[in-house]
This record gives sequence, structure tokens and C-alpha cells, in this order.
Amino acid sequence: MTETFLIVGGDAAGMSAASKAKRDDPDREVVVLERGEWVSYGACGLPYYVKGEIDDLEDLVAIPAERFQEERDIDLRTGHEAAAIDPEDQTVTVETDERTYTQSYDELLVATGARAIAPPIDGLDRDGVFTLQTMEAGRELKEYVDAQAGDTVGIIGGGYIGIELAEAFRGQNLDVELFEMRSHVLEPFGSEVAKTVESELRDNDVAVHTDTRVDRVAGDDRVRTVITPDGKFPVDAVLVAAGVQPRVELAESAGIDVGPTGALATDQYGRTNVESVYAAGDCAEIIHAVTGDPAHVPLALTANRAGRAVGATVAGEPTPVGEIAGTAVLKAFDLEVARTGLLEDERLREAGFDPVSVSITAASRAHYYPGGSEVEITLVGDADSGAVLGASMVGKEGVAKRIDTVAAAIQGDMSVTDLAYLDLSYAPPFGPTWDPVLTAAKVLGGKLS
Amino acid sequence: MTETFLIVGGDAAGMSAASKAKRDDPDREVVVLERGEWVSYGACGLPYYVKGEIDDLEDLVAIPAERFQEERDIDLRTGHEAAAIDPEDQTVTVETDERTYTQSYDELLVATGARAIAPPIDGLDRDGVFTLQTMEAGRELKEYVDAQAGDTVGIIGGGYIGIELAEAFRGQNLDVELFEMRSHVLEPFGSEVAKTVESELRDNDVAVHTDTRVDRVAGDDRVRTVITPDGKFPVDAVLVAAGVQPRVELAESAGIDVGPTGALATDQYGRTNVESVYAAGDCAEIIHAVTGDPAHVPLALTANRAGRAVGATVAGEPTPVGEIAGTAVLKAFDLEVARTGLLEDERLREAGFDPVSVSITAASRAHYYPGGSEVEITLVGDADSGAVLGASMVGKEGVAKRIDTVAAAIQGDMSVTDLAYLDLSYAPPFGPTWDPVLTAAKVLGGKLS
Repeated sequence: MTETFLIVGGDAAGMSAASKAKRDDPDREVVVLERGEWVSYGACGLPYYVKGEIDDLEDLVAIPAERFQEERDIDLRTGHEAAAIDPEDQTVTVETDERTYTQSYDELLVATGARAIAPPIDGLDRDGVFTLQTMEAGRELKEYVDAQAGDTVGIIGGGYIGIELAEAFRGQNLDVELFEMRSHVLEPFGSEVAKTVESELRDNDVAVHTDTRVDRVAGDDRVRTVITPDGKFPVDAVLVAAGVQPRVELAESAGIDVGPTGALATDQYGRTNVESVYAAGDCAEIIHAVTGDPAHVPLALTANRAGRAVGATVAGEPTPVGEIAGTAVLKAFDLEVARTGLLEDERLREAGFDPVSVSITAASRAHYYPGGSEVEITLVGDADSGAVLGASMVGKEGVAKRIDTVAAAIQGDMSVTDLAYLDLSYAPPFGPTWDPVLTAAKVLGGKLS
Repeated sequence: MTETFLIVGGDAAGMSAASKAKRDDPDREVVVLERGEWVSYGACGLPYYVKGEIDDLEDLVAIPAERFQEERDIDLRTGHEAAAIDPEDQTVTVETDERTYTQSYDELLVATGARAIAPPIDGLDRDGVFTLQTMEAGRELKEYVDAQAGDTVGIIGGGYIGIELAEAFRGQNLDVELFEMRSHVLEPFGSEVAKTVESELRDNDVAVHTDTRVDRVAGDDRVRTVITPDGKFPVDAVLVAAGVQPRVELAESAGIDVGPTGALATDQYGRTNVESVYAAGDCAEIIHAVTGDPAHVPLALTANRAGRAVGATVAGEPTPVGEIAGTAVLKAFDLEVARTGLLEDERLREAGFDPVSVSITAASRAHYYPGGSEVEITLVGDADSGAVLGASMVGKEGVAKRIDTVAAAIQGDMSVTDLAYLDLSYAPPFGPTWDPVLTAAKVLGGKLS
């Protein structure tokens, strides 16, 4: 009898798993349940859609639903929500607008993703409060932005979505008040890089309020005011970008373990504690290369890779989901801002490291080559082992892919000295003879020895 | 008594060694003999000076001679040529325009660099034939270019200097005929990348003649014709860019060993076979990370790093000169072109590998993000060990620093599978979710397994 690989969730992890399983084992029945209408879409592109740089929401879709169905022979069912998992019977209860039915499986992948965190702030149920976690939310936000040039938007949260949307709103002639409860924006990027980003935001007329916890939002028929301990800020809309949390309820109800991060716990193949049930993507944990411990870093590559690995494993070739280094990059107006590994002193000490950090500024091109700018790098190493632990960078050019060298060093278990000895590319238009990463590693090496 | 560290050659390796030794051991006497007038200059910037993007030749100097002398207390002697080394007496015979004298040393660094290869082509002694190995040569070429807009220049050699100068000449309204005796330009970059570069050259009205060995150049008072088996090409000037060879005569006369590459043989600390004599930079060999064998890859970072290491060693802290991966990048009109490791099938087989190669094309940005272009990658791995052996890339953006990820993989002894599992940065403006390097590694991994 044909075996059925059932997947709950039709975005990055789910569709990667479906495609890989079907390609490696064409005889297997692959069924995907997606409660919405969109599959395989690039949520990372939503800020640029809001900004007006991408015309159609459909452009964000990597592969349309029909192609999965027709070309890849995947039984993709949109508008189908998984309501319950019965691990004993190996079935899932499925609900559509019209009916409820039971779908059996031989292997099950939970790829339910994450949802926007609703912070404990009164008044967020008012009209004019937006999030940006789904395609539908993106469309609503874009409709508002298109209609309301000149308005002021309050952004709650200075993470990368908050910052990308600040750029998008300014590009559409909206005023922006950005509220971050921590001492700086982009918390996992470290304070040095964050200061430069905050300066760039202000240079682009974004009002940045750090150390500012929003108490509540007030209004009448819709939101009108953001209220903080420092004062009241009149707004015409509010965008909540306070991070995401994994969607684990469906799995947890079925007895699937949640790990220390609050996401679903898995082994190196993405297997949960329940027989024949896998989890991957934004709902699942993954091992962090620096600590060796489970982490929850919901990013696109992680989800794609883990989904693909589960697809291969289900098709018969056990394939690890891999580890992450927590590498991330964003564009903030004219800046490239990137990070990898772990930078936060407290988290590193908790994980047993003795972190030492340096921050340097270097040139993006040879000193004599026209058009260069500055690259700022913070590099963190372990005083005990000499290992590279993390880095963050910011600059107008040459940052987005330069961070990858440090990511490779972390996943390759290199020491700071090893990093300083890498033979990195050099030509006058692209950097100084000693790449800024090498300079940072040399300086950090001097502090560690 | 004060010890004397004597350095022959005042460019990248020599001045890096001088500065490091003096910094680490301020009591040591550091003497540098430089036969020319220029020290610590960026020869890599000469093409951009010729192109007119850098106003003054002096702009290429990283640190002026006076600063070495006054701020760093280095006894820098320009216009002083080392004529002979006596390893028994530990002395060097020094010649200036006025006198000859004997300089004693406790440690000696030979940093005599490389010279432009004069290929066996008749007529290269004519006026109107240029090279670009020294600052003086750069000044002469620039004077010619400034005076002769509309001329045709024949470039002999399609390596990176030849290509950078083709761009410079076209930028100054000169016509260019480029002659490359091999089947494609940029030989160490592999044929796939080279084809794209040749197309870019032709799009910019550079006539590219591959598989074309120049027999001789002819003329009267100056060069007028480049003569090849395929025909005669009228020119107003010729630029010879046929590569460089190490300057080893001074050292070889003193009994210092030359290695299999023709450059000076050293150990991991840059020591030659002769007591207290080091060699570093473009005149010396260095270990290649792929083969583990000595190589001669005369590039700026290698020279700076090896010189600095020798300076540290001489000052009392034994410091390896490191290995190279042969990483290189150049700008060719609107393209970034990069390489690392080894790509050539024959060389790899000689070194005992069983090379397997893939070439892929990927997007430089997310498919929906405006302004993206293509990145072409060739990745080579070893069928026996699975190791990453080399890569080359070309594209309009995101290439120069993307190659560094593969360089790190090579020096970190990663397998192609390890490379495919790196957690590389992603955001829509900077690449697709799966970085092109990851895609290449996935595809190559499939061929290797």
C-alpha cells in the first residue's frame, strides 16, 4: 500500500519537505494541509511590498499552488485546517469551511510556523492596529498605507520587522514613531551596531524611543494615541512588531514535547518524541552551533533546510536538519546590518563561556579607491577556548555577505586565530588588504592571548 | 648590544615586518633597504590611477616614508640597493648612487618582491611598450594615456592586470586589443567564469583574442603592430601583462634555496635554509591550503601577513606565516569576479584529488526584489574525501565577499556537505533564501554522493 506523508502547514518548511519527499520517492503520497490560501510565500518580502517596491502580493510567492499540484504531484489542500492529531491512530482531524474529516498518515510533519506576539498592551484590539505576519496582514497594511500618506504610524518593537517597516513607511511619506522597550534596537545585534542603526533611523526622520515600554494605546473608533511613561504620542495607526512565538498548540495537545525555548523539541532529524511525527520550521527548535543547545531562531533558511531534510528522511535517506549560527541580515535605509552567533554577554556566560569582545571600524574599500565608507564590526571570542562566538556588522556596503565568513568560522569550530589567518579576497574596489573581519580577529586575538 | 633586523625591500612584506618587529620590540634596530623611492605602496591601485579614478600617485601610498622614520623609528633607507648577502659574516653589501657599504644584521628578511615577466616576444624593447609593476611604470603609462586619447593599445595577457587595464583604457577612450594565449582569460578562475568575463569585455568594446600567442611586435621608432598567427593588429602602444616572477637572484647567490615554484623556499615561520635569513612576500613560497604543498601566489594579503608574522617572530614570538587558499577578486567593468582554492582539473589530479565540478546560476536577490542580477558559481569538490577544493564566481553584485565563505570552508577543512549546511545570511535585498553558495554545494553534494 502507498505510504502517506502528511504535512501540516504549507509555507517554507512544509512545502520544502513535500517537494523533497516527492522528488526522492515519487510513489509516496504527499498531502499538505494549509489552513490559509497562500503557500510557499516569502513573508520576508512583505516590508518591500508595503514600501511599494514590489507591485503584486502574488510576486512574493515562490511557487504557485497549482505547480505543486500539477507539476510535482503533491496533494496540496488549501483552506484545510488541522484541528487535532491522534498519534495512536496516526490520523489528523481536518476542518474546512464545509466539512470535517479524518486524514490518516504514515509520517506526519508539523510545520505550523509562528505567530506575531501580542504584547500585553491594552487597546491593541482597536482598528488601525496592524501586524505583518501573514500575506493577508500585508495586504491590509498596504491598503492603509496607500490611502493615508501624511499619517503618523507608531511602531511597537525595534527588531528587524519594525525597522524594515520604518523604512517602508518613510518611503510612503508616513511619519514614524518607533518604540523599543530595551536600551537599543535590534537586541540580538549588540549595542555597537544598534547605535549606528538608530542614528540612520533618525537621519531618515524616524523618531526612535528606546528604553520605552508602551503602556497602552488609546483612541475612539480607532487607535489615536500611544501612551508611554515618557508621554503620549498622537498616531493614526500602530504596527505591532514585537517578535513571533511558535505555534505549538496543535502538537502540544497531541503529546508532542515542547522544549526549553517554547518551540517543539526535536532530534537531529527533526523527529519529535512521538513516533512518526516530525516538526520543522518556525514552530520547532534547532541546535545552536555556539552553545550546542536547542534554540528558537525562526528564519527562512532554517525552515527551508529543516523541511527539506525531513522530506529526505521520510523518503528513506536519514538527513540531519543541521545546526544554526543565528545568522541574520537586514537593510535599514542605506545600511546593511548583519549578525551571527551569540553576542550577548549574559547569554554567553550562562552558556559557560568567558566572552571577550572588540569593536573596530574599517574601510569598505582601499583607502585610495573612491566611494568607500565605513564598516563597523563587533567580534566576540571565548577567553577559555579561543573560539569565535559571534559577530555583528554594519555599513553602507560589503556587510551582508561578509558576515558569512564569521558564520563559517563558527560552524567550522574555528578559533579567533584561525579566523585571523583566513585568506580572504582583496581588490581595491571591495576592501582594504586586510579584510575588516581579519582586522577584528587580529585585534581580538591580541586581547585573548 | 642592540640587535639589528635588516630588511631588503620596502613594500608590503618588508614594511609590515619592520613595523611589527619595532612595535613588539622597540629596542631592536630595524633597518630597511629599498632601492627605489617608493615604500608601502598599493600597486593594486595602479589600474585605477591609470583609469583616472585616483588623482595622485601618492594617494596609493599607505604610509609615507617619513612616518616610518619619524613615528615608528624605523631606519628606512630609500635609494639603497642590496647587492650581495654574506650569510657567514651576516652582512649585506649596499649600493647607493654615491657609495657602497657593508651593513651587518642579526636577522635578515628578504622581501625583494616580483617583477613583470618579459615573455619571449621580439620587439618588446621598442618605445610604446609598457608594463605595470612599479609606481614609476604606472606614472609613465598614465602620462601616455592622458596624452593619447583615441589610440589603440594592445594588451598582452588576459590575467587580472590585463583586464583591469582594459577597463582603465576604455575609461580613457582608448581602443583595446587583448591577446590571451590560453583558451580563455583569467586562467586560474576556470572557463565558466572566464566566458562571462569575455562577454563583458566585448560588451565594453574590448576586442578579445583568446588562443592567440603574440609572435612579435613590430614598428619603427616605436611599436606599431602586434603580429599573431591570426593576423596583424595595428596598435599605438602595447601593455605587457604576462604575469610576474619572483625576484630571487640576490638570495639565490647567497645560497638560499629556491623551491619547486621558482620562489624562495621557507618553513612555516618564513625561515629559509640559511641561518637567520627569512623570506616573505612576492619572492617567497607559501603553503597552499588545498594541496599542503608550497605555492607561489603573489598577492597583497599574503605578503602583508607573512611580513607581519616574520616581524613578530624576529621580535621573539614565533608566529606562522599561515597558509593561502589562493583567494582573489577583481572588478571587470560591471562584474565582480572571484576565485579561491584550486579549480583546474589537471592540477588537482596531479595533487592526488578526484575533482568533480558543478556550475550553477542563481539570483543575487530574492526573486521578487527589484534590481537583482545573476551570480554564476563553479564549485569543485573531491570525490574521494568530499572536501571542498575550489570555487569561482562572477556577477554584478554580491560576489567579492561571497567567495570568502568558500575560502573559509577550504581553510577550515570542510566537506561539501558541511558547506551546504552553513547558516548563511538571508534577506531579500541580498540574496535568495538559499545562498547561491549553498545551492552550488547542494548540487555538488548530490554528484559526489
